[in-house]
Amino acid sequence: MSRNYAANTYPFRASSHFLYFVGEPLVDSFALIEGERCTLFLPRPGPDDALWHGVVPSFAELAEQTGCTVEPLDRLKRALEGRPVATLPAPDAATRTLQSRLLNREVVPGRLIVEDARLADAVIALRLLHDEHAIAGLREAAEATAAAHRAGMGATTPGVREWTICAAMERELTKRGMTTAYGSIVTVRGEVLHNESHHRLPADGDLLLADVGAETAGGWAGDVTRTWPVNGRFSETQRDLYDVVLAAQKQTIASVRHGVRYLDVHLTACRALASGLVALGILRGDVDELVADGVHALLFPHGVGHLLGLDVHDMEDLGDRAGYGSGRSRSSQFGLSYLRLDRDLVPGMAVTIEPGLYQVPAILNDPKLRAMAGDRLDMTRLEAFSDVRGIRIEDDVLVTPKGHEVLTAAIPKEPDAVEQAVGRGTS
Amino acid sequence: MSRNYAANTYPFRASSHFLYFVGEPLVDSFALIEGERCTLFLPRPGPDDALWHGVVPSFAELAEQTGCTVEPLDRLKRALEGRPVATLPAPDAATRTLQSRLLNREVVPGRLIVEDARLADAVIALRLLHDEHAIAGLREAAEATAAAHRAGMGATTPGVREWTICAAMERELTKRGMTTAYGSIVTVRGEVLHNESHHRLPADGDLLLADVGAETAGGWAGDVTRTWPVNGRFSETQRDLYDVVLAAQKQTIASVRHGVRYLDVHLTACRALASGLVALGILRGDVDELVADGVHALLFPHGVGHLLGLDVHDMEDLGDRAGYGSGRSRSSQFGLSYLRLDRDLVPGMAVTIEPGLYQVPAILNDPKLRAMAGDRLDMTRLEAFSDVRGIRIEDDVLVTPKGHEVLTAAIPKEPDAVEQAVGRGTS
Repeated sequence: MSRNYAANTYPFRASSHFLYFVGEPLVDSFALIEGERCTLFLPRPGPDDALWHGVVPSFAELAEQTGCTVEPLDRLKRALEGRPVATLPAPDAATRTLQSRLLNREVVPGRLIVEDARLADAVIALRLLHDEHAIAGLREAAEATAAAHRAGMGATTPGVREWTICAAMERELTKRGMTTAYGSIVTVRGEVLHNESHHRLPADGDLLLADVGAETAGGWAGDVTRTWPVNGRFSETQRDLYDVVLAAQKQTIASVRHGVRYLDVHLTACRALASGLVALGILRGDVDELVADGVHALLFPHGVGHLLGLDVHDMEDLGDRAGYGSGRSRSSQFGLSYLRLDRDLVPGMAVTIEPGLYQVPAILNDPKLRAMAGDRLDMTRLEAFSDVRGIRIEDDVLVTPKGHEVLTAAIPKEPDAVEQAVGRGTS
Repeated sequence: MSRNYAANTYPFRASSHFLYFVGEPLVDSFALIEGERCTLFLPRPGPDDALWHGVVPSFAELAEQTGCTVEPLDRLKRALEGRPVATLPAPDAATRTLQSRLLNREVVPGRLIVEDARLADAVIALRLLHDEHAIAGLREAAEATAAAHRAGMGATTPGVREWTICAAMERELTKRGMTTAYGSIVTVRGEVLHNESHHRLPADGDLLLADVGAETAGGWAGDVTRTWPVNGRFSETQRDLYDVVLAAQKQTIASVRHGVRYLDVHLTACRALASGLVALGILRGDVDELVADGVHALLFPHGVGHLLGLDVHDMEDLGDRAGYGSGRSRSSQFGLSYLRLDRDLVPGMAVTIEPGLYQVPAILNDPKLRAMAGDRLDMTRLEAFSDVRGIRIEDDVLVTPKGHEVLTAAIPKEPDAVEQAVGRGTS
């Protein structure tokens, strides 16, 4: 995809569906799957390619490597003629235009025809459950992600700018031949959930929130958040709220096992957070009622996690079809409406568990939400915690036959361990 | 632009034309320019934006900041109705589709209607000549690019993989809040001109070629290549060829001044390289004849440089319209056909000067090219230099009223200075 002119492109990223079936990120290529057979249609190498891009594998070598038949792209149109073909809309508009032209019909995300929807469901059924190869990919991503977070903690001291910390973290990915699975969040404004600006100078006493994950060469994603004190010591109030989030995260992870509905995993987090906030005097009332009414969502507005795989929000290109099984759909309640996943967990699924607490002015000043909360949210008490803007603790969790495995367990998250890791320098 | 699903995007990069006129990389926004007046059409903030993306400047604040009138995007269609509007095709397909819909005509790069072509020429006339603000941007890019190259040299020792060196270089950009202006080339296979793979383990005795440039937050590009010995010492043969390239680069830079045609700048490089190769016994014959016939192009196949500005190949989205003035067009001769620029130089233009020498098997084994060269290329003699795959030395040069200024002069390029910089570690 062009960044500013045709020859200056963004790093190519193959569609995750293509990666799943073919295993190689081949540029401008299509896979035609019929039963057990897969045919790849690739552009013929241009006369100048060897000069500018080096020797590329021949069609025969690629066939050997992928186990697919390999044909030149200009034969695809004819190969598709006169038979029903289902497809999944590509992420980028130019490729979708090509798909529409090849199939003589409009290919648009969110408006799948019946055949495409059936294909989507079949692909989801496969990709939901990670096999050994996929799990190895997720482990590789988790390991690099762990190195990035340790480097980020090590690089943090007062006076070091956000982007210097971000640079230390992303270097760990680049030096493993990997990239980021999503735009890195490295910020003292953790209350802005998808804050991708890195220009701020953290002050002594600030918390830094880093949500950074690796994407392996094969496309597998890591997705981890840690929050640490810039000066290496949590204040008392920061530690109080950090402990609430950490306890909620552990309790929520403990609930992950075969057969559990993810909505209940989310609600476990909500209850744990609400209960911690009641203990601190920030919320008042019965925990179950607070959660049922969504009072906790004023401080924890997002979902507790999502599917993880070749996409960091796995298969989100298919909308809620992957995250919500048939018969389930998103709630319209504030907070719950952001939950990206509500399936029954099955061994082989990978999910994130990422509770957090945030002071978001746009929420806390919202008259409707404040009226709903009433005196169950003690704003005066909350003011005592003004040195916390946002805390999130996120790990990647694989559902196993025996329960679960935390793939990113090696990254410090106990407050003492975090404090020790901060400012120790990078390797 | 979506990377794998709608919410997971590539880092947004505004069109350089938009950046030039508005100065701010505003997402999903259009600028309507009438005479001296500029109106910006922006999407209205969504209800969830404050939560996910934080507080964004209001329309009034943006108007203050940019000096433009600011209107909501949904008013653009009506604002365009019933009047002739010229436009420049956006880099990405989805935005071009939107342009086509807004203007009720197909907007396609390379097929400009008369009005669009006139607009393109007017924009080129402005963007060709860098004012103080632009030059400040190019200096900022040059400075960061210099830091990256010094870090890359410092991080290089035998046993360190290409992507570790690349990571050390790119960290210097990230930690300044910048990005790369193009896909970084950091490779021991320098003969593959746009080699963007970084997985190789450089061997003791290899040369490493690094073509890495910064893009500032404002969009200004740096573009620099250095070539250094992995073990910190050029071999005799490496040094011989390095000296030929360096002498050619200096001579070519010396030729840059007001009124000189860039084709002649390119030919200066060709003659200097050919002359050096004759001295080493690799080429045989009269230098002018060798260059006229394109024999030198078997070892120096590309153009000596290009325009530099908000795009690393400035305004290449408009094809050769920017690089070649009216009445000039590309040669079809091998080598010359890759020259991206042939204008008369004028103070305010910025160009790269980047001669190189490469042993590209696809070229050296090409029967037609070899027949053309005949015994004027001594392949046996060339074999003595088999420890050189590719050398390129590139700087960014501003044409000034008095001659020129090398913006990237601070980066080591004398062989002794390069040797000293290698393996010294990173700061």
